[in-house]
Amino acid sequence: MAESIRIYTAALIVIGDEILSGRTHDANIAQVASWLGVQGIRLSEVRVVADDTVAIVEAVNTLRARNDYLFTTGGIGPTHDDITVDAVAEALGVDVIVHPEARAILSEYYEPRGGLTEARLRMARVPDGAELIPNRYTGAPGIRVGNIYLMAGVPQITAGMLDALSGTLEGGQPLLSETVGCWVAESEVADLLRETEKAHASCQIGSYPFWRDGRTGANFVIRSTDARDLADCVHDLMEGLEGIGKPAVPGGI
Amino acid sequence: MAESIRIYTAALIVIGDEILSGRTHDANIAQVASWLGVQGIRLSEVRVVADDTVAIVEAVNTLRARNDYLFTTGGIGPTHDDITVDAVAEALGVDVIVHPEARAILSEYYEPRGGLTEARLRMARVPDGAELIPNRYTGAPGIRVGNIYLMAGVPQITAGMLDALSGTLEGGQPLLSETVGCWVAESEVADLLRETEKAHASCQIGSYPFWRDGRTGANFVIRSTDARDLADCVHDLMEGLEGIGKPAVPGGI
Repeated sequence: MAESIRIYTAALIVIGDEILSGRTHDANIAQVASWLGVQGIRLSEVRVVADDTVAIVEAVNTLRARNDYLFTTGGIGPTHDDITVDAVAEALGVDVIVHPEARAILSEYYEPRGGLTEARLRMARVPDGAELIPNRYTGAPGIRVGNIYLMAGVPQITAGMLDALSGTLEGGQPLLSETVGCWVAESEVADLLRETEKAHASCQIGSYPFWRDGRTGANFVIRSTDARDLADCVHDLMEGLEGIGKPAVPGGI
Repeated sequence: MAESIRIYTAALIVIGDEILSGRTHDANIAQVASWLGVQGIRLSEVRVVADDTVAIVEAVNTLRARNDYLFTTGGIGPTHDDITVDAVAEALGVDVIVHPEARAILSEYYEPRGGLTEARLRMARVPDGAELIPNRYTGAPGIRVGNIYLMAGVPQITAGMLDALSGTLEGGQPLLSETVGCWVAESEVADLLRETEKAHASCQIGSYPFWRDGRTGANFVIRSTDARDLADCVHDLMEGLEGIGKPAVPGGI
């Protein structure tokens, strides 16, 4: 039965020198990943690239071809370092046009804010053939073109755009997950983890060790699209941990 | 003069389903990026890939070839989902061996902790030809092989490994940066930013807008390897902002 499930995948390109310099901690990877999970779409890979046309074009063309969806964050603002629209148009081999609806939205938004300057009009530019994604915070819309979704870099604005897209993308069965924590060194339970995973064909078990207050522990995340097999796997893992005298903590530590 | 400066670059591969599921917020990108900056090495690109051999091999072979250094984080622990060592060995076309020194370190570390089991011995496995990177927290070492540095996934342990590597990698001139903040919509100063950047050949200006307490602001980050040109560029930008009645905030907002 597992074989008949269609898996939908997405990739994400985080565009911006500020992430690569270490100045800004990215918050969009986790946000987009969680949102995709709810839509039944699996985030398969992420690339962080510089504000550099060649790098963006390469990433766009590689990732859009091998995923159902491609998301980008960053580089759609009004300044000289905002080159995402031009780079995506170049990757697709289409022109950049001014989108009439985007121009109207920006014109209205900026009317009480000093008017629509040439710099602000940059935010109405889209690859030819694109549709807009509403931005409820600052006017400037996100952009969909083919299977590519261009989102803002500011996480709060991205959140609003994702919200606007909720339920509009075709996805598969959501990947379900359960977490089991344990105060144990993962090296003590490596065999148990491998064997439990093997006994539940639809499940994957990830082991995430931590080291807190001088104590060693780990969280085990069990993922599956099959709710029953997931529950059975969690049950077996917890029983296995009890069996070696290491009580499991449902929900994780 | 700028033309004669050798730029050293590194790439980073973050390995782990937990980042792609959105469960764990990555902390290693910013940490590795900042550390590289201090070594005079520029982080040129990052990829986040799943615990999947094919994906890791592809990323390793692409990125090691076009960067001076390649770092990976994650997947070097004792459990079945830790496949980084095997994938990197496959990418390099070398065998996986048990490193005698790593075995000795683990043997000593686990002696009072239940002994060196088969699972724990997995952490002594390295691609043939590798050297060890000390781990002052939990015994299991990081691994250097060629220009590839395999680090832990747990950020605290990665930090210790980076510390152990400090000053050992050949780098270039550190990229210097200054930040100037301003309560202004970046769309109002797009021309100023572009022209100021153009007037200072060694400098790049990044514009990072934010939206806080209902107010619009931006931080402008000026980067250069030339301290004098950087200072001049910061001066000109601040003067330009004052000139339009928008006081600059040195150091950023």
